Amino acid sequence: MQDGPEPIDALQRLYDIVADDMAAVNREIVARMSSDVPLIPELAGHIVAAGGKRLRPLLTLAASRMFGCEGTNHIELAACVEFIHTATLLHDDVVDESALRRGGASANALFGNSASVLVGDFLFSRSFQLMVQIGSLEVLKILSNASATIAEGEVLQLSTANNPDTTIDEYYEVIRGKTAALFAAAARVGPVLAGRSEADADALEAYGMNLGITFQIVDDVLDYDADQKALGKSIGDDFREGKATLPVLLAFARGDADAKGFWRRTIEDQDQKPDDLERAISYLRETDAIAISAKAARHFANEAKEALTSVRGDESISKALADVADFCVERAF
Amino acid sequence: MQDGPEPIDALQRLYDIVADDMAAVNREIVARMSSDVPLIPELAGHIVAAGGKRLRPLLTLAASRMFGCEGTNHIELAACVEFIHTATLLHDDVVDESALRRGGASANALFGNSASVLVGDFLFSRSFQLMVQIGSLEVLKILSNASATIAEGEVLQLSTANNPDTTIDEYYEVIRGKTAALFAAAARVGPVLAGRSEADADALEAYGMNLGITFQIVDDVLDYDADQKALGKSIGDDFREGKATLPVLLAFARGDADAKGFWRRTIEDQDQKPDDLERAISYLRETDAIAISAKAARHFANEAKEALTSVRGDESISKALADVADFCVERAF
Repeated sequence: MQDGPEPIDALQRLYDIVADDMAAVNREIVARMSSDVPLIPELAGHIVAAGGKRLRPLLTLAASRMFGCEGTNHIELAACVEFIHTATLLHDDVVDESALRRGGASANALFGNSASVLVGDFLFSRSFQLMVQIGSLEVLKILSNASATIAEGEVLQLSTANNPDTTIDEYYEVIRGKTAALFAAAARVGPVLAGRSEADADALEAYGMNLGITFQIVDDVLDYDADQKALGKSIGDDFREGKATLPVLLAFARGDADAKGFWRRTIEDQDQKPDDLERAISYLRETDAIAISAKAARHFANEAKEALTSVRGDESISKALADVADFCVERAF
Repeated sequence: MQDGPEPIDALQRLYDIVADDMAAVNREIVARMSSDVPLIPELAGHIVAAGGKRLRPLLTLAASRMFGCEGTNHIELAACVEFIHTATLLHDDVVDESALRRGGASANALFGNSASVLVGDFLFSRSFQLMVQIGSLEVLKILSNASATIAEGEVLQLSTANNPDTTIDEYYEVIRGKTAALFAAAARVGPVLAGRSEADADALEAYGMNLGITFQIVDDVLDYDADQKALGKSIGDDFREGKATLPVLLAFARGDADAKGFWRRTIEDQDQKPDDLERAISYLRETDAIAISAKAARHFANEAKEALTSVRGDESISKALADVADFCVERAF
């Protein structure tokens, strides 16, 4: 995209700024997932090769370079962050019984649930081994706290599954845990590595937290976006699993008796007919659930940008991070 | 048993020595598995309440007190060790599709696989949070290394499942990883917390490693021991799952064509008939597989005791640890 006539999107601009670092992170990831047990690099390689956006290590790299980090600690830390994320993906796929991940067959579909659980455990442990090598107790604290919060968010999500009476507050608690906590930690470790003030660390953490919330709201909306289907992305996964996401909760709360009955049948009772996804999308539009979700995403993106205003660091990176928050919202609405 | 006329067994003697510490560990475990997400203490409480032998925290307490540890760090660390163990149990039950654990319904049978995976992740993360509070990078290194090794052992075990051609070396690699690594780490952290020499740490690690190997061999033999059935313990789990344990590998290697065919059918093809477990036990006896396994267990128990001889510390604890190694072998043969 860099060479094309189209405007470069904000995310791509941030990738470009830390391109050399990201290449090093990718080498580090491959090197560190090695093991004498062949199935480990085989399975881990499958999910790593599938790519993914590397958003979380991107945050770590940007938040480190923003404050002038040199050396290799930020590279290794970005790899740790991606390992924790990959471990949660592997476990999520077992939990969701997903057959697809990153556009290809999921690891659990190819290698079985057992291998996915255990290789997830390995990557998680490997991440902590790497952090110990870096030798910062502060970093270990941030990422062990984030890991516990992620697990709490995931367990809470289980408890809200198939329940259209889930409150909006509970929804935010789930996504703060399962998604935003790692965004927040990935951003916070940058200023911490650079030895910056608590205020700078808090600011980057707030940026990451709000960006993560934005990202997840947008992701939850895109799962019902027919335009995505045209882009070759699968939609309706959350619907089929009966996830209590923001658009569904809004459409349920704002729907008439017919709509409420529809959501109870499809989400709560998991009784779904072939054209129910299209009907769900209609209900989401009719009840303004998409528009209200967009407004919420915009709110958190603004909070993310606001958090950066008090911070002094490399301005091109700070600007790029702010633009990424906008881009996150724009990709959906 | 303490008050009865029977001789107190070695394990009970060690529990008695650190009884106050162990009571504190149990309180710490209950306090630290708390979470705002109710399902977490509910599920974790289920497996913790089921008891278990608390062997690994026992090792941490004994190896700490042996070198005069005071304060509460060794208590918290023993809780960390038990959390890591509990996390692996929760994940193992998902991997093995076990319906029973510690004599009751397993967590995955009661709460589902998803909750078991995620609460395991939570306990694992919580363990690292606690270690960060203790603040020793050395301890974090020991337990993050052990966690990675456990996962490697478990993945290797997957690869050897249902394969009677698994070599004895591979068997030992599996049990070193899945079992002995945490015994070794649990024992090593004692002298490390107490600030003792590298030689003392290595000695306690060697004790734990060899005790763990002994323990696992004995466990693998007991799964085929009809006398255990009389004690109300379930037997034949490994057989039904087709695990390539030491007794099976020996009976396969030493068996005639009929025996080899039997093991291929039952372990490799998982084609088992109602009276096959009894037939398996007959083959194990006929081929001396049990006697040879006993000899192996005795060898590693002796290695465990030998490792302690160079160490100067509380002699009553050192003696009790040595006796535990003997007891481990005697409980089976």
